[in-house]
Amino acid sequence: MGGDLAPAVTVEGALRAHRERGLQVLLVGDEQRLKIELRRLGAGETELRVHHASEVVEMDEQPGQALRKKKDSSLKVCFDLVAAKEVDGMVSAGNSGAVLAGGLFVLGRLDGVDRPCIGGSLPTVKGRAVLVDMGANVECTPEQIVQFALMGEVYARKVLGVARPKVGVVANGEEEGKGTDLTRKAAAALRLDPEIEFRGYVEGKDVFSGDFDVIATDGFTGNVLLKTAEGAVWAFGQMLKRQIQSSTVASAGALLLGPALEQVRKRVDYEEIGGAPLLGVHGVAMLAHGRSTARAILNALSAAELFAQKQLEEDLTAAARRGATLFTQRAAS
Amino acid sequence: MGGDLAPAVTVEGALRAHRERGLQVLLVGDEQRLKIELRRLGAGETELRVHHASEVVEMDEQPGQALRKKKDSSLKVCFDLVAAKEVDGMVSAGNSGAVLAGGLFVLGRLDGVDRPCIGGSLPTVKGRAVLVDMGANVECTPEQIVQFALMGEVYARKVLGVARPKVGVVANGEEEGKGTDLTRKAAAALRLDPEIEFRGYVEGKDVFSGDFDVIATDGFTGNVLLKTAEGAVWAFGQMLKRQIQSSTVASAGALLLGPALEQVRKRVDYEEIGGAPLLGVHGVAMLAHGRSTARAILNALSAAELFAQKQLEEDLTAAARRGATLFTQRAAS
Repeated sequence: MGGDLAPAVTVEGALRAHRERGLQVLLVGDEQRLKIELRRLGAGETELRVHHASEVVEMDEQPGQALRKKKDSSLKVCFDLVAAKEVDGMVSAGNSGAVLAGGLFVLGRLDGVDRPCIGGSLPTVKGRAVLVDMGANVECTPEQIVQFALMGEVYARKVLGVARPKVGVVANGEEEGKGTDLTRKAAAALRLDPEIEFRGYVEGKDVFSGDFDVIATDGFTGNVLLKTAEGAVWAFGQMLKRQIQSSTVASAGALLLGPALEQVRKRVDYEEIGGAPLLGVHGVAMLAHGRSTARAILNALSAAELFAQKQLEEDLTAAARRGATLFTQRAAS
Repeated sequence: MGGDLAPAVTVEGALRAHRERGLQVLLVGDEQRLKIELRRLGAGETELRVHHASEVVEMDEQPGQALRKKKDSSLKVCFDLVAAKEVDGMVSAGNSGAVLAGGLFVLGRLDGVDRPCIGGSLPTVKGRAVLVDMGANVECTPEQIVQFALMGEVYARKVLGVARPKVGVVANGEEEGKGTDLTRKAAAALRLDPEIEFRGYVEGKDVFSGDFDVIATDGFTGNVLLKTAEGAVWAFGQMLKRQIQSSTVASAGALLLGPALEQVRKRVDYEEIGGAPLLGVHGVAMLAHGRSTARAILNALSAAELFAQKQLEEDLTAAARRGATLFTQRAAS
C-alpha cells in the first residue's frame, strides 16, 4: 500500500513479476482494494494471493511511531511475515524511514552489526556500484562506515556477481591525508583488511567511472551524493531540451537521437534498479523508490528474490564482525 | 606559473583579457619564460608587464610549507603584490591549498571572519548558484557555515547581481528535522537573520533547480557535491557517446545536435566561470581550475576585476559579524 502510485502500480508490478519471472508474490494490504486492482488487470484467482492488512503507514508519518501504532498496517504486517519466515523477503515503495525502523525493530540487527544501512545503486560507465549508506544513518562512526563497506562488499560479490569488488571511501581527494577524521579512520581500518580489494578514497568525480564497485560513506553524504547526481543529470537534460527547442536542426537531431537517449536514461533510472537492500538485518527487505513504476516494482521483487536465494546472513555477520576486529587490530598496532 | 597548462595558457588568457576587455594585467613569474610566451603570441612591448619571480609552487606541494619556503615563488610574490595594493586582485590556477594559505597568511582574514571560504559556481537551469564552501574547510562549525552563507550572499548580490539571493543549507531532505547537528544549528541561526532570504535546506537534487542562489555547506560536502555533479554529467556523456556509436541514425542525430550540446557543455563548464573567489580575506584572490584554458583565465581575470571594483570588504566584514551575532541571539532566546 506504500508509495506514491500504490496500490495500482504495485499490484501491476507484482503481477508482472509472477507472470514474467515466475515469482510467488503475496500482496499485503487492503484486501478489497487489492482485489479490485487484480480484477482490473485480469489476474486469475490463483495468480497472486492477498494477505489483508487494514491500515497504511503514510509517506510523511513519523516512522517509529507509525510502526508501533499501526500494528495492522501493510508495512508492519509485511515485516511480521518476513520475521516469521512465511515469506522469503519483502519490497516496499512506502515511507523509507518506516522501512528502516521495521528492519531495526521487527527483523532485528544481525549479530555484530552496529547499524544496518541501505545499499543504493549508482550507474557507472562500466555497470553499477553499490552506495553504502545511501541515507539511513545521517551521523556515523568510523566503525559503522567500515561495516557498511564490508556488508556492501558481500552484496556486490554475492548478489551482483562482482568477482572481486573494488571498495572505496568517499572523500574530497584521493590522497590519504584528505578527508575528515571520520573518513581517515575508516580508510585506515579498511586498509588492514586482507580479504577485500580496498582502493582508498573515491572522489565525487570518480564515483561513476566504474573503478569502484562499493562506495562507502555516511548516510548524509551518501544522500547528497546520490541526489546531486540525479539533479545534475536532470538539469543537463533540461538545459539541452531548451537548447533543442530553439533550433530546428537540433530538434531533428534530437528526434534521431531519441532511442539512444532513452537507452541511457534507462541505465541511469531507478526504474531499472528496482530496489535498495537493507543490509545488516535478519531477512530480506528491499526499499523501492516512492514513485516506482510497475517495472521498478518488478525489478525490486526480482532483486529481493535473488538476495533471499543467496542466504547472506552468515556472510554479512562475518563481515560486520571482521569490521569490528579491524579496529581492535588498529588500536593494538 | 601555476596550473597544469601554465605558463603558455595563462599568458594567452591574460593577453586576451587585455585585448578583449581592456584589463591591465601584470604577469608574475619567470621573466624569461613569460617573455617567450608573449613573443610567441605576438604581444607588443607595452601590452602586458612582467614581474619576475624565480620560484614555482608545485601542484602537489604542501601548501603552508611551500609558501613559507618559496618566498620568491610566483604565487607568494603575487600575494605580496595584492597585500601591498600594487594590484587590485589576483588569479591563480595553481595549487589551491597554497592559494588558500596565501589568503590566510599573506592577505589575512577580514575582521570577524572565523574561516575564509571558497565560493564555487554551480550551473543551474536558471543561471548560476554560489557554492560556499567548495572545499577549503573540510571540517566546520555551525558558526562557520553561517558565515560562509552570509559572505556568499554578499557575493551573489554585489558581484553576480542577484537582487535578493535565496540562501539554502545542504542537507539530506527539506524538512527542518533532517540533516545533522551541524546543519540544524546553522539553519536555525540563518532563520533568525531578517536581512537575507533564507529558504531552509536544499537537497542534492534541487541544487541545480535555480531555486537557490547561495548554497552553504562544509568544504567536505561542497567538494563531494561539486565533483559528483561533474562526474555525473561526464558519465552521462560517456554512456550517450557509446550508445551513439552503435547506431548510424543516432550518429546522424548527434551530428545535428552538436551545436546545441556544445552550448550546454559551455554552460556547465568551469571554463565559462573562470574563477572561484576567496571570501573573507583582505584583497581579491581568485582560484582558477588547474586545467584552465585561456578562456577560463580570461573569465577569471574579469571576475577578479569585477570583485575588486565592488570593494566588498566592508560588506563581507559586516556579514561575518552578523553571522556571529545570530548565535549570540540564539543562545539568549
